[in-house]
Amino acid sequence: MRNIKLVIEYDGTNYCGWQIQNRKANKSKHKTLQGTIEKTLKKILKEKVSLIASGRTDSGVHARGQVASFKVKSSLPAKNIQKALNSLLLDDISILDAKDVPLDFHARFFAKTKTYRYLILNQDCPSALLRNYCYRVSYKLDITKMRKAAKLLLGRHDFKAFCASGSSVKNTVRTIKKIIINRKYDWRIMSHTSQRASGNWRLICIDIQADGFLYNMVRSIVGTLIEIGRGKIELTSIRNIIDYKKRYLVGPTVPAQGLCLLRVDY
Amino acid sequence: MRNIKLVIEYDGTNYCGWQIQNRKANKSKHKTLQGTIEKTLKKILKEKVSLIASGRTDSGVHARGQVASFKVKSSLPAKNIQKALNSLLLDDISILDAKDVPLDFHARFFAKTKTYRYLILNQDCPSALLRNYCYRVSYKLDITKMRKAAKLLLGRHDFKAFCASGSSVKNTVRTIKKIIINRKYDWRIMSHTSQRASGNWRLICIDIQADGFLYNMVRSIVGTLIEIGRGKIELTSIRNIIDYKKRYLVGPTVPAQGLCLLRVDY
Repeated sequence: MRNIKLVIEYDGTNYCGWQIQNRKANKSKHKTLQGTIEKTLKKILKEKVSLIASGRTDSGVHARGQVASFKVKSSLPAKNIQKALNSLLLDDISILDAKDVPLDFHARFFAKTKTYRYLILNQDCPSALLRNYCYRVSYKLDITKMRKAAKLLLGRHDFKAFCASGSSVKNTVRTIKKIIINRKYDWRIMSHTSQRASGNWRLICIDIQADGFLYNMVRSIVGTLIEIGRGKIELTSIRNIIDYKKRYLVGPTVPAQGLCLLRVDY
Repeated sequence: MRNIKLVIEYDGTNYCGWQIQNRKANKSKHKTLQGTIEKTLKKILKEKVSLIASGRTDSGVHARGQVASFKVKSSLPAKNIQKALNSLLLDDISILDAKDVPLDFHARFFAKTKTYRYLILNQDCPSALLRNYCYRVSYKLDITKMRKAAKLLLGRHDFKAFCASGSSVKNTVRTIKKIIINRKYDWRIMSHTSQRASGNWRLICIDIQADGFLYNMVRSIVGTLIEIGRGKIELTSIRNIIDYKKRYLVGPTVPAQGLCLLRVDY
């Protein structure tokens, strides 16, 4: 028996998230990433395999470094499995790496940190090219305030208030290691002043690294940071949210399409 | 009569280019950007209008700042036209700006410079998220050589050799004002060394600004720069291409999906 670890990039737009909901329902209407990749692996390996991912991603969420592993008897070299997957899968899924790992490796339990990126398009106009990859916020956002709030979230805390209700997780303590918030302009050919020209996306990029995330935690934190940035939530509320788990102070959960799992470290 | 100027962003993936080929054939199979926007303008303004763009873009080519103007009798404020367009058009077209301009304004004849960007994904692995927005080149590219070649292209030259055969343009002299070639890594959260981690796209971004472009000129220049970068064409060939119009020395025309019209200046 072998254990093979995949690093996967995917455009989540046309999938109902990572996890198979109902094995019988993995038709195009309820197509999941796990189901699609498992089906293709079965074609290649002539064996039924079960993918274990570092965690699920919701419908519409993207990944640039999702990690998933599976056990298999086949002796096909990992690089050949990668090539076969890339040639058989639709081009909205790319296998970035495939290699043999020890049999006890577990993509979820062994993950030390995960890094997510949330992309905010901070302008009035919608963007045709980024429509599936960002969330548009028209309000002016005070990025200095957002960074101050982010600083208060760093470290080991009980993030229960940022966890979607209905989640069955018992331990809601997590450690956030980094939150980096930056404005990004994409153009450099023009002079500094024309950075604000129409067509130059006004992006705010929020990268969050933690030892793990609760269900909807990133989207709920980003929603709260946006409310702080536009002055609807006070900076002091962060303390109340964390220390007294006051869920009603948390901002709305932002849409899935702005979210991307950047990487998982082991 | 009024003249209205639009600035348009579009994802060219699902369109057969900008220009209407055959007015009767603008069905979903041969959907063009011009046809789609004109049809929507007619709905809004109850008048038939003709869009004049700064230039056509080919099937699959994107734009972040295409400019097009049209004459109309309606007194509907330009900002309302913009809003109505953005709400009626599919979200792969965004109207970034709309304003009244003098009646003699002509989006093509008045254009002083146009800036295109070509995105090369310089890695072995395909990218699920960038599949429609870049061209993948697996070879190692010598960016210093490419920059030297680009320098030779700057200025006023006869670019006939870079023009697709079959084009009917007579004057093939153009002035290239800037060519900027940069490697881009997208991640900054991690340390410098992990910039090369799988999942961090290895992009080369080529921005070209000129007073005008011949048909396929950007894609043909980029193809030549790539051949120079991988050592298939000598740096000295650039002189032969420009001075003696030796078309056989020009590299292959790179695919449309990596190309984006960044902006048009007047």
